[in-house]
Amino acid sequence: MQTQVHLLTMAHPGDVSALDALINNGAIHAGQIVAVIGKTEGNGGVNDFTRGYFTQSLMQMLSGHLQSSPAELAARIPCILSGGTEGVLSPHYVVFCRLPEQAADDGPALATGLAFSAPTAVEQIGRASHARQIARAVRAAMDDAGLDDPAQVHFVQIKTPCITVARAEQARACGLEPVSGDPNKAMAYARAAGALGVALALGEIDEAALTDAALLSDMALYSERASVSSGVEISCNEVIVLGNSPHWSGPYRIAHRPMRDALDIGAVAATLADLGLAASPQLSPNALERIAGVFVKCEPQRNGRVRASRHTMLDDTDINAQRHIRGAVGGMVAGVIGDGRIFVSGGAEHQGPDGGGLIAVIASTARDA
Amino acid sequence: MQTQVHLLTMAHPGDVSALDALINNGAIHAGQIVAVIGKTEGNGGVNDFTRGYFTQSLMQMLSGHLQSSPAELAARIPCILSGGTEGVLSPHYVVFCRLPEQAADDGPALATGLAFSAPTAVEQIGRASHARQIARAVRAAMDDAGLDDPAQVHFVQIKTPCITVARAEQARACGLEPVSGDPNKAMAYARAAGALGVALALGEIDEAALTDAALLSDMALYSERASVSSGVEISCNEVIVLGNSPHWSGPYRIAHRPMRDALDIGAVAATLADLGLAASPQLSPNALERIAGVFVKCEPQRNGRVRASRHTMLDDTDINAQRHIRGAVGGMVAGVIGDGRIFVSGGAEHQGPDGGGLIAVIASTARDA
Amino acid sequence: MQTQVHLLTMAHPGDVSALDALINNGAIHAGQIVAVIGKTEGNGGVNDFTRGYFTQSLMQMLSGHLQSSPAELAARIPCILSGGTEGVLSPHYVVFCRLPEQAADDGPALATGLAFSAPTAVEQIGRASHARQIARAVRAAMDDAGLDDPAQVHFVQIKTPCITVARAEQARACGLEPVSGDPNKAMAYARAAGALGVALALGEIDEAALTDAALLSDMALYSERASVSSGVEISCNEVIVLGNSPHWSGPYRIAHRPMRDALDIGAVAATLADLGLAASPQLSPNALERIAGVFVKCEPQRNGRVRASRHTMLDDTDINAQRHIRGAVGGMVAGVIGDGRIFVSGGAEHQGPDGGGLIAVIASTARDA
Amino acid sequence: MQTQVHLLTMAHPGDVSALDALINNGAIHAGQIVAVIGKTEGNGGVNDFTRGYFTQSLMQMLSGHLQSSPAELAARIPCILSGGTEGVLSPHYVVFCRLPEQAADDGPALATGLAFSAPTAVEQIGRASHARQIARAVRAAMDDAGLDDPAQVHFVQIKTPCITVARAEQARACGLEPVSGDPNKAMAYARAAGALGVALALGEIDEAALTDAALLSDMALYSERASVSSGVEISCNEVIVLGNSPHWSGPYRIAHRPMRDALDIGAVAATLADLGLAASPQLSPNALERIAGVFVKCEPQRNGRVRASRHTMLDDTDINAQRHIRGAVGGMVAGVIGDGRIFVSGGAEHQGPDGGGLIAVIASTARDA
Repeated sequence: MQTQVHLLTMAHPGDVSALDALINNGAIHAGQIVAVIGKTEGNGGVNDFTRGYFTQSLMQMLSGHLQSSPAELAARIPCILSGGTEGVLSPHYVVFCRLPEQAADDGPALATGLAFSAPTAVEQIGRASHARQIARAVRAAMDDAGLDDPAQVHFVQIKTPCITVARAEQARACGLEPVSGDPNKAMAYARAAGALGVALALGEIDEAALTDAALLSDMALYSERASVSSGVEISCNEVIVLGNSPHWSGPYRIAHRPMRDALDIGAVAATLADLGLAASPQLSPNALERIAGVFVKCEPQRNGRVRASRHTMLDDTDINAQRHIRGAVGGMVAGVIGDGRIFVSGGAEHQGPDGGGLIAVIASTARDA
Repeated sequence: MQTQVHLLTMAHPGDVSALDALINNGAIHAGQIVAVIGKTEGNGGVNDFTRGYFTQSLMQMLSGHLQSSPAELAARIPCILSGGTEGVLSPHYVVFCRLPEQAADDGPALATGLAFSAPTAVEQIGRASHARQIARAVRAAMDDAGLDDPAQVHFVQIKTPCITVARAEQARACGLEPVSGDPNKAMAYARAAGALGVALALGEIDEAALTDAALLSDMALYSERASVSSGVEISCNEVIVLGNSPHWSGPYRIAHRPMRDALDIGAVAATLADLGLAASPQLSPNALERIAGVFVKCEPQRNGRVRASRHTMLDDTDINAQRHIRGAVGGMVAGVIGDGRIFVSGGAEHQGPDGGGLIAVIASTARDA
Repeated sequence: MQTQVHLLTMAHPGDVSALDALINNGAIHAGQIVAVIGKTEGNGGVNDFTRGYFTQSLMQMLSGHLQSSPAELAARIPCILSGGTEGVLSPHYVVFCRLPEQAADDGPALATGLAFSAPTAVEQIGRASHARQIARAVRAAMDDAGLDDPAQVHFVQIKTPCITVARAEQARACGLEPVSGDPNKAMAYARAAGALGVALALGEIDEAALTDAALLSDMALYSERASVSSGVEISCNEVIVLGNSPHWSGPYRIAHRPMRDALDIGAVAATLADLGLAASPQLSPNALERIAGVFVKCEPQRNGRVRASRHTMLDDTDINAQRHIRGAVGGMVAGVIGDGRIFVSGGAEHQGPDGGGLIAVIASTARDA
Repeated sequence: MQTQVHLLTMAHPGDVSALDALINNGAIHAGQIVAVIGKTEGNGGVNDFTRGYFTQSLMQMLSGHLQSSPAELAARIPCILSGGTEGVLSPHYVVFCRLPEQAADDGPALATGLAFSAPTAVEQIGRASHARQIARAVRAAMDDAGLDDPAQVHFVQIKTPCITVARAEQARACGLEPVSGDPNKAMAYARAAGALGVALALGEIDEAALTDAALLSDMALYSERASVSSGVEISCNEVIVLGNSPHWSGPYRIAHRPMRDALDIGAVAATLADLGLAASPQLSPNALERIAGVFVKCEPQRNGRVRASRHTMLDDTDINAQRHIRGAVGGMVAGVIGDGRIFVSGGAEHQGPDGGGLIAVIASTARDA
């Protein structure tokens, strides 16, 4: 088995022409596409419809190449998008293909595993039972990839459903209480459930520590490898597990590091170093060509400070705090990489150390001279 | 002569208690304060009143220490503020004091020169005559500092008046046409005039090149050392010139570099290197202690790209493009420095290469062991 | 001939289930749908993708009911959306069907005419030639409806293409100069061209008055019946003409009034009175049931005042002025009508008196007791 | 005793020149000013500093006319500002003066009472004990006005402190838990405490009903006469009680009505009718001259609907829901009044029926011919 990775750009959230072209010219076999992770240019909040628009466009296009309806494809190919390309960030998507044949390069190489859970009920979203549901799905995705050791896993991307005002009303009408009536708050709880679900599956936290009360509260509990997005457009949980496995081949490797805060530029450099890439202070054009995907989670520090200095993200009524932090951390990571096609997702509750986050990078091995 | 530099924090835009405390404990003589440059936490646009609020608070506080009214102080101490502390940026202000006595450290050391122009008429704002008025003020500020060679100048901070809808209406009622009726556009023209005024004074452009038509149009014309803010709260132009002069003494030095685009992390490292500071990839805590001020100008690239990748700053109806770029470049520079107290100002028209900007850093010399 | 009008709601911009249900239960024949006008919940600016998402969803759904591809349908059924449901405004769409048979009610009744122009080149958008192109399309739509007297026309809805940063760059690369490089400004020029095109077709302005220089400048030129939206998702101009014609039958009538400013609540009451509806101060539930569509254009007054009082819409860096005005005028009109499903579109340049706008209402005749 | 009311405009949040001019020309005796209620043009959120800027400017100006320092004046003249002049709303302030002498007009006439509470501890803000503290202050203000019957009270304006991220951190460092760590949420709790405090003082709710759990939860509890703002710039609670009293004289009367939802235009007309003013549909210029102050509270309905139709205010990540609702309800009320100088304040939790709010109008009696 091998994983092929394609980093593609879009002109707008309905534009999937880059992938369509690669399928048409034979570079990609549509049937081998197993997952998509991307950034669209919405606001990243509850009312960000660029994610649904891109997904609809993608599934419709793939439906033209395959024998399945858009709905069937959406139910088996996770398309996990984070909205918000603040600052220098650039809308893009990373397409993961799974090829049955052995590649020339020996492993350990990038392994890709997938799973979908059953739908999560509105009143369950953002609670411990939601996290356990996700943990089971993560283990299923690891099995799917043949990643038996959690240490081989470097990045787990989750997409969970969230709660709109309308969904919350419906639940209340049935006598069920959603975790929060505030849509942005409920979204945070949903991400927390996703993160602790990954942490549980990877053995980063104890089963006993995972209680309803721990979510968004006990910030000492976290995963160093979970990235969770939440959106109105889905009702079940989608899981993509990425790791390095000796059973896989091909040119791609993945590395990751936790980021201790929004200024942790050292974590970026260290992750690149793990892949044999030197940023001094930026990747060279040759090194940049090897980059196939950069994934970052980050979060405005809740005590109102970044190290010693006061930040104003949480007190800002005009710009959502997640938009602030994505722009700032995105600017820093893009500066080191030398490109704005970075997946930077806010809402890193329990994803990396509190007030920080994490970074994962996929790179191909060096081309021969 | 010597320049003393104090980097202070504020809890909100009306908070000048940090400076008040230093005056009260004798660390600063109020009468030696010659200029203030800072960042407040507004939106940085036409309707950002945090700048006026801070200035009112500052002048009122200083008035309690000196024999002058707030209005008299405001007319002789430039207080140049940029609004907008997006992302990890932290509200702060840098206080410049001029001491008559020689310091122990020999020069060349940081020299500070000041000038105020006469008020600029609304119909003149953002035109070539405005730029010429500013060039004269810059030369006056260089004289004030004894900086006779433009090569000794590393940073010129300008504050110019701008045009609100109300001011534009008044001008039109008098039969005068402002450069633009759109307040944000007029603000851009005002900054352009400031930048080209500096470029003219420093010999970076030819006198003949400076025409009304060149402003916001011939982007090949620029200063590598101009930083211009524009605000509703003033009617004349305020100029602060900073350079290194053999006639000055004290521990402070200044360095600067143009930034070719929003990803030019190399310019940050090079400026620090000029001051003997190594970021690998971030300044050490000891090195950080030497930093007395970091000043950055930046701008969303007008062709909609950062290097090869599309950015979305200029098409965004929700977040002003200047807020986007400040957050991104601020995140990158703060990552290298290791602190969010960075003066990052958007609106870098003609300030550094088009789509880029510039950086200047003031640092003290290394402390002895 | 008769026009049938359906006022439908959506749960999100990809939700066309209300129309799908009406088609499935036979209340609407899909083949008789000739136009859709609606409001989606984006920001209404250049980067509002809710319009494209809704259109894609609509055409895909209709394609399932008809023998045409989504692209073919989009090329013959104008779907004109305005983004932005600020305040009490509610996402909704009005579906116009044309039935060949005579209705029981005699005319004059609501007549519907349609036309599509050829694509407009980027460098032509927002210029006088663009307006002339639109005038020709309006006349074609009047012919289509059999509305031979301009006095019979009460409302003309136009959708024109606009200029993104990327499109502007492409044009410049070909040596062509777009009317403005600022996407929001270019959008305003495009709307101006649409409005003056309608005014020309309806005889509201002289052919000679229509020059490039007049657009966004000579605000004494305007149409009292034009409503223009502009969006990235189309390249040609779409026209829907609505009027009352003795040749048409059915229960629907349309009336309109110019609004002299954002406080012109009298225009709302007068339009309703033209249709035999009394608001005192609000429509009764019975009267509300007769409402089939309310269409409003409005604009922040450019002199910074509403009557004697200063407004702050144009100086606001946080909220786009069009979002401000839609929220305010939408609140007023919804208060009189008693429902938030009001099509309120900002950007009323040359659409109604300067700083004001216009209102059109479609209502069915009173039901018998 | 009599109350004089002056409705004044400002050019920006630091502009108190209109009042200064009236004091200088003798129309107002500075010593008789007892309260100020106004709207400034910030965002109305935690980081709205226009309120503090205006207050500082006002107190400094008054200090020049009186023998007291700005701090002393701020401690005895409540200056209660609401930020946010969305849409057609216009920045303005209403100055209340208390004159000892009898006016020619007999009462009942507008009576004004004042009170200041002690500071509220951060951990107390937004809880039942905060509400009880406010109830005591309301009773003190009623005593101050000689309003012994709660039925005589038509409007109670409260300003309460709120919780910033920094204040919350300090409290937690002392082992104290603030009601919420989210600044916007904490602000809502503070307003709830203010409203229920008024309701308790006016006998609108039972003492027993006022529990911590009731705040922001039991929305059946409310006052029809409470208007509460919350801001970072104060630490104690300020109370202004307005009513009609037979012991007072002068031309001013006040009336009020609850608003059942954001479309309740009938409540506006009814309040005007109580004062002998007919809006048909708008006040005539003569009637408008009698208006001395319009005060509105409103709130986005939490079930996501306004009557039958879905609204999008609570799901919007770009524009704060309070800004949405102020713009909409402000547009409606300004349309009926015919002027944008309306005090419209969001955050109407427990102030009027849930999802609605209230309106109070002060008007002078008709001038003789």
